[in-house]
Amino acid sequence: MDLNADLGEGFGHWTLTDDDALLDCVTSANVACGFHAGDASVMRRVCDTAAARGVRIGAQVAYRDLAGFGRRSMDVPPAELTAEVAYQIGALRVFAEAAGSAVSYVKPHGALYNRAVWDDDQAAAVIEGVRLAGGGLAVLGLPGSRLLAHAGAAGLTAVTEAFADRAYTPEGTLVPRGEPGAVVHDADEVVRRSVGMAVDGGVLGADGSRTAVAARSLCVHGDTPGAAALARRVRAALEAAGVTVRAFA
Amino acid sequence: MDLNADLGEGFGHWTLTDDDALLDCVTSANVACGFHAGDASVMRRVCDTAAARGVRIGAQVAYRDLAGFGRRSMDVPPAELTAEVAYQIGALRVFAEAAGSAVSYVKPHGALYNRAVWDDDQAAAVIEGVRLAGGGLAVLGLPGSRLLAHAGAAGLTAVTEAFADRAYTPEGTLVPRGEPGAVVHDADEVVRRSVGMAVDGGVLGADGSRTAVAARSLCVHGDTPGAAALARRVRAALEAAGVTVRAFA
Amino acid sequence: MDLNADLGEGFGHWTLTDDDALLDCVTSANVACGFHAGDASVMRRVCDTAAARGVRIGAQVAYRDLAGFGRRSMDVPPAELTAEVAYQIGALRVFAEAAGSAVSYVKPHGALYNRAVWDDDQAAAVIEGVRLAGGGLAVLGLPGSRLLAHAGAAGLTAVTEAFADRAYTPEGTLVPRGEPGAVVHDADEVVRRSVGMAVDGGVLGADGSRTAVAARSLCVHGDTPGAAALARRVRAALEAAGVTVRAFA
Amino acid sequence: MDLNADLGEGFGHWTLTDDDALLDCVTSANVACGFHAGDASVMRRVCDTAAARGVRIGAQVAYRDLAGFGRRSMDVPPAELTAEVAYQIGALRVFAEAAGSAVSYVKPHGALYNRAVWDDDQAAAVIEGVRLAGGGLAVLGLPGSRLLAHAGAAGLTAVTEAFADRAYTPEGTLVPRGEPGAVVHDADEVVRRSVGMAVDGGVLGADGSRTAVAARSLCVHGDTPGAAALARRVRAALEAAGVTVRAFA
Repeated sequence: MDLNADLGEGFGHWTLTDDDALLDCVTSANVACGFHAGDASVMRRVCDTAAARGVRIGAQVAYRDLAGFGRRSMDVPPAELTAEVAYQIGALRVFAEAAGSAVSYVKPHGALYNRAVWDDDQAAAVIEGVRLAGGGLAVLGLPGSRLLAHAGAAGLTAVTEAFADRAYTPEGTLVPRGEPGAVVHDADEVVRRSVGMAVDGGVLGADGSRTAVAARSLCVHGDTPGAAALARRVRAALEAAGVTVRAFA
Repeated sequence: MDLNADLGEGFGHWTLTDDDALLDCVTSANVACGFHAGDASVMRRVCDTAAARGVRIGAQVAYRDLAGFGRRSMDVPPAELTAEVAYQIGALRVFAEAAGSAVSYVKPHGALYNRAVWDDDQAAAVIEGVRLAGGGLAVLGLPGSRLLAHAGAAGLTAVTEAFADRAYTPEGTLVPRGEPGAVVHDADEVVRRSVGMAVDGGVLGADGSRTAVAARSLCVHGDTPGAAALARRVRAALEAAGVTVRAFA
Repeated sequence: MDLNADLGEGFGHWTLTDDDALLDCVTSANVACGFHAGDASVMRRVCDTAAARGVRIGAQVAYRDLAGFGRRSMDVPPAELTAEVAYQIGALRVFAEAAGSAVSYVKPHGALYNRAVWDDDQAAAVIEGVRLAGGGLAVLGLPGSRLLAHAGAAGLTAVTEAFADRAYTPEGTLVPRGEPGAVVHDADEVVRRSVGMAVDGGVLGADGSRTAVAARSLCVHGDTPGAAALARRVRAALEAAGVTVRAFA
Repeated sequence: MDLNADLGEGFGHWTLTDDDALLDCVTSANVACGFHAGDASVMRRVCDTAAARGVRIGAQVAYRDLAGFGRRSMDVPPAELTAEVAYQIGALRVFAEAAGSAVSYVKPHGALYNRAVWDDDQAAAVIEGVRLAGGGLAVLGLPGSRLLAHAGAAGLTAVTEAFADRAYTPEGTLVPRGEPGAVVHDADEVVRRSVGMAVDGGVLGADGSRTAVAARSLCVHGDTPGAAALARRVRAALEAAGVTVRAFA
């Protein structure tokens, strides 16, 4: 099982994610590329640390929206979105390669991530941007998303991911954030669910029913207080359960 | 002799340079990378056209200043400047390479260009950014500038350039823009000076004195009305004078 | 009949609208406020000229999206949108008042204009921003839009506007831009329709059917080549037809 | 003695200053206006709280530089700077007035503050922006600065301020940040110096010499951990020493 987290989400004078601590326990780093967060200095620092610790580097591409942290869905025309995705990958690649590593995957951020689940045009535009950037990058996304469908059709490796702190519908999709119980706040429960997803490939709902969640990567959130501590607990619990924690192949 | 011009200086809904016409006569395209101008879509389009016409692609790196078009000098700390330069090169590289070409040189824009003439710290920081980006890129700049000194010291190819529409002091530096006669507006005179610089390696001043201008590249401005027509005239005059117009080696 | 146009849509080094020429014939100036276009210097200049010529000043509020010129619909949460609308009005007010005039109305721009036609939450949020800004500003919008409904409910003056260069459905709404015939490009036809809207309160469709268009203001576009010349023709034709062209009350 | 602090320096998803806690002890709030920090939502919230607690509201105007937090000196042409200063004041005014208060003073931020000490052109441009914004705003600045000289010449109230956590030269200017001992980190020492400045109008240097510091306002920093706690201690110590802490007249 791979453990990924959003990193490098500071900007200029502002900090958000505890990049240093998180890079101690995740195996894949989704690095912000300057459109929703992450200036060039932050990107360089995160790439240097990730490379030094053998953590895989991915481009966390986003809408161009610093003021909204990339969380506001935008009707970006496909050709513009394709170019913006490629731009972000290229910018990050310079720092990954300077650190002796490489950008090896792409994961959309925030509103773009959610929209690429169902919006066929934007999902295709993102994948076209990944293809334009070359290098045969893998793509991280939700099982069943248009994003992963287009990734597969383009011959790219589609990597499914799951969220241990989010409730799932019986159909295996995420319960929308606004609804009650959508986010699991209890740390013990998050740890328990992480192990369940990794070992059994499923998660138990509040009603006791089991939902299958086929994921090759588990996302731990980096932008909440205690994020690093929780990530460490998740990793320890996975390893205690006999799960090998390493970057996806 | 190489002919270079600043290109791709539109942004979003705004256009500035007549990229298509200029790419018909220059041999090196200084492509804006998004910090002073040039969004991802513009960058992609310019790279595609440049590659199709065999025009060399360079990164026109700048201060992060869309509102000032990169013309306002900024006290950017060296480490930040280095990262910002590398970021811009990486972003452009994605489009150059997707078009089957490459970023082969770097030229600072506007206030950064002028400051890198004398500011040793910023000049060094720019070159460190070029070095970080890898690929052994050449650097375009003013003869005698700190920028080219640092480029040479870093083992990079330093390419001197001259401006046919700018007056020179007897010492071979540019007359500052504010002073009378600093900019040559007469097209015939610009053409005459271009040939003089290419054939004789010098330029005649208003007082009849000759200033040596050792340049391997000639910059034609792209952001003025009639820029493309003037560039075509310069190129034709150079060729008529027996000068081979091609990208620097 | 009032004639309004979008003005001040340059930014930094870029220009777009021929503000000077348009301010010679319109009666209301929708001034960009820095979010989709229009930096502080442009805003000051347009306000100075508008005030000197007795042209009414309005705030052309927009999504925060320079790269997309405010033409990309964004899911901005209502409270943020309210604050952003008020911010833009306040910024413009300083220049209008310094010029001895005032901001007297608000018109949303681009994607925000289109969305406020049907999106009740965003329409309400815009009006709440207008209310927050105080001064009892009028609101320009499409007849039947949620925007004008909320404006009226808030006790603000709702001013209906029409577009002489856009085709209308029999129901009186705009034919979407993508559809054939949506935009009227022929200048004579635009002039003819302008007079028809002002004199008869309606417009003849391609099939000869007449659509009622109740408008107190007519929008002439400022960001196309020949915009100022067309606006002058429209104004002259209106006056020749006996229509008094002046700002709405 | 007035106590002022920089507030509202978050942006979008990022937070920095503990606005709520600081507004409990300062008498003047320097509110960021969106150029170096502070989006419209933050500005509204800070103005609402400040007004509710009777804290005076000032515009903390800055260079347009989110990525550098306004700390990088920029060669902004005076006319542009004037317009940008007025723009920021106008934007803030909307929220101050909506909250039933007003913008009553202006204080430049970061690099603009430091530059307006000695750069006559920029200092004059800032004051021209303040004058353009109308309302007879006071101006906060360093004693002896060009900023306050121009404020006085323009008939505006010039309010001198002092920094309890910064070392002073025998001439009464700040020891530059880079030099040893420039910043006083010890909280007890900061409190002691605050009282000394308020009661004796001076501060004791490391060598025992006394420097006169004539200040009508004392600046407490808001963007450091423990800022609010330190501000509370400073206020308590001032009051214990018999100093009346209230906004400047």
